[in-house]
Amino acid sequence: MSSEFTFWTETFKIKQFEIDTDGYALLSVIADNMQEAAGSHAESLGWSMQSLLDQNMGWILNRFTLDIHRYPKAGEVIRIETWPSGADRLFAYRDFELFDDRGGLILSARTAWLILDIKRRRPIATPEDVKEIGARSIRNARIEIESKIPAPEGDVVKSIRFPIRRSDLDINQHVNNVRYMEWVLETLYEVQNIRPRFLDIQFKSEGKYGEVAISERYDAGSGDHIHRIVRESDGKELCVAIVHNA
Amino acid sequence: MSSEFTFWTETFKIKQFEIDTDGYALLSVIADNMQEAAGSHAESLGWSMQSLLDQNMGWILNRFTLDIHRYPKAGEVIRIETWPSGADRLFAYRDFELFDDRGGLILSARTAWLILDIKRRRPIATPEDVKEIGARSIRNARIEIESKIPAPEGDVVKSIRFPIRRSDLDINQHVNNVRYMEWVLETLYEVQNIRPRFLDIQFKSEGKYGEVAISERYDAGSGDHIHRIVRESDGKELCVAIVHNA
Repeated sequence: MSSEFTFWTETFKIKQFEIDTDGYALLSVIADNMQEAAGSHAESLGWSMQSLLDQNMGWILNRFTLDIHRYPKAGEVIRIETWPSGADRLFAYRDFELFDDRGGLILSARTAWLILDIKRRRPIATPEDVKEIGARSIRNARIEIESKIPAPEGDVVKSIRFPIRRSDLDINQHVNNVRYMEWVLETLYEVQNIRPRFLDIQFKSEGKYGEVAISERYDAGSGDHIHRIVRESDGKELCVAIVHNA
Repeated sequence: MSSEFTFWTETFKIKQFEIDTDGYALLSVIADNMQEAAGSHAESLGWSMQSLLDQNMGWILNRFTLDIHRYPKAGEVIRIETWPSGADRLFAYRDFELFDDRGGLILSARTAWLILDIKRRRPIATPEDVKEIGARSIRNARIEIESKIPAPEGDVVKSIRFPIRRSDLDINQHVNNVRYMEWVLETLYEVQNIRPRFLDIQFKSEGKYGEVAISERYDAGSGDHIHRIVRESDGKELCVAIVHNA
């Protein structure tokens, strides 16, 4: 097997329907395109969603951390660079850097993925060749990762109910992780759009069609916010997040 | 001024995050890309959203009729062909045909647009040069248009509340018309995805942040459905639609 550093790059253009009411690209659109690039890269490495599904396994995004330098506008062409950046017993890590057409940094990000045994609904140990690919990494995205997203303190400042729709689901019949990102951000909007500088989100459980998700925001001082999304019926946490300088 | 037929073509690729849980492209994604192409063409003709906004005017989509031959899958590259197909006192019409990479027809569509005086919130008469462009049309999309979307009869079969979110708005701070399309389709989903063969939707009023929209479905026999979306607070109709063979 090759010992080369493996790396993927592709571009996408921000379209008119992918912007907020101030004209800036939606973070959800950027996140969708990052995962599209990750999927294409995994496929080229022999670890596509489909090849895993054929073995009753699936890639699950566990954590998504973004440090955002600026928000692009409609018409801008964004270059995504992404690569496996390491792996341990349960997680495979993948970093990203996005650049504009003059080479300016748009954002840096790290993702943590696990492989699920679909029948047993349990993660499996990271396969040796995924570990081996991760061990070849020679580059890190410029981003600070905290070990843990802090638990919220004090009272809920804002909460919004999201009955789970068909249009919220991904191919696995669970809520698309980008939808959770939208629901986190929605609790920050009052009269104006919010474009966070930093967002760290951890996915804990799967939301299903017909359930109701409640997105809660807690203030953490200095413009920081802690978020939880819980299932209404039993309070189970679907995800937690922290947002800086929103 | 040129008397040439004016025509626009562009392609887009269906991405992994743009499909339903059966793997078929979302109609909302196709509709978004059609409007993106229409916007690019209008811009090239000197009638961009921005040039109108500078004169306190805006293009408003009044009606969107789609006859869908098949739904593409992720990875397919779709060619959009679009052109102004006529104009009368209030409306400018634009047709579309979408093809796959072997030239197979994906769908045919017609749209009707009006130009709004933003300050007075009233449509203005179609400008002469927009009429002149429409009069040059030498092609019609292969689609049957009924004069009017029929009023519903009988009882509501299904209704779903949609509190209007930030993420539902377009650049004009009103609900994006494609969101209404999603809300119409959502009332058709029970356990499986629905991919209608024909959808005709007319937009009647603007939905705003914080309002609640209710999407109602009425059965019209033979697999046909009549839909209304109304504002919860006063029952005002935001849009009406008919769906065939859902």
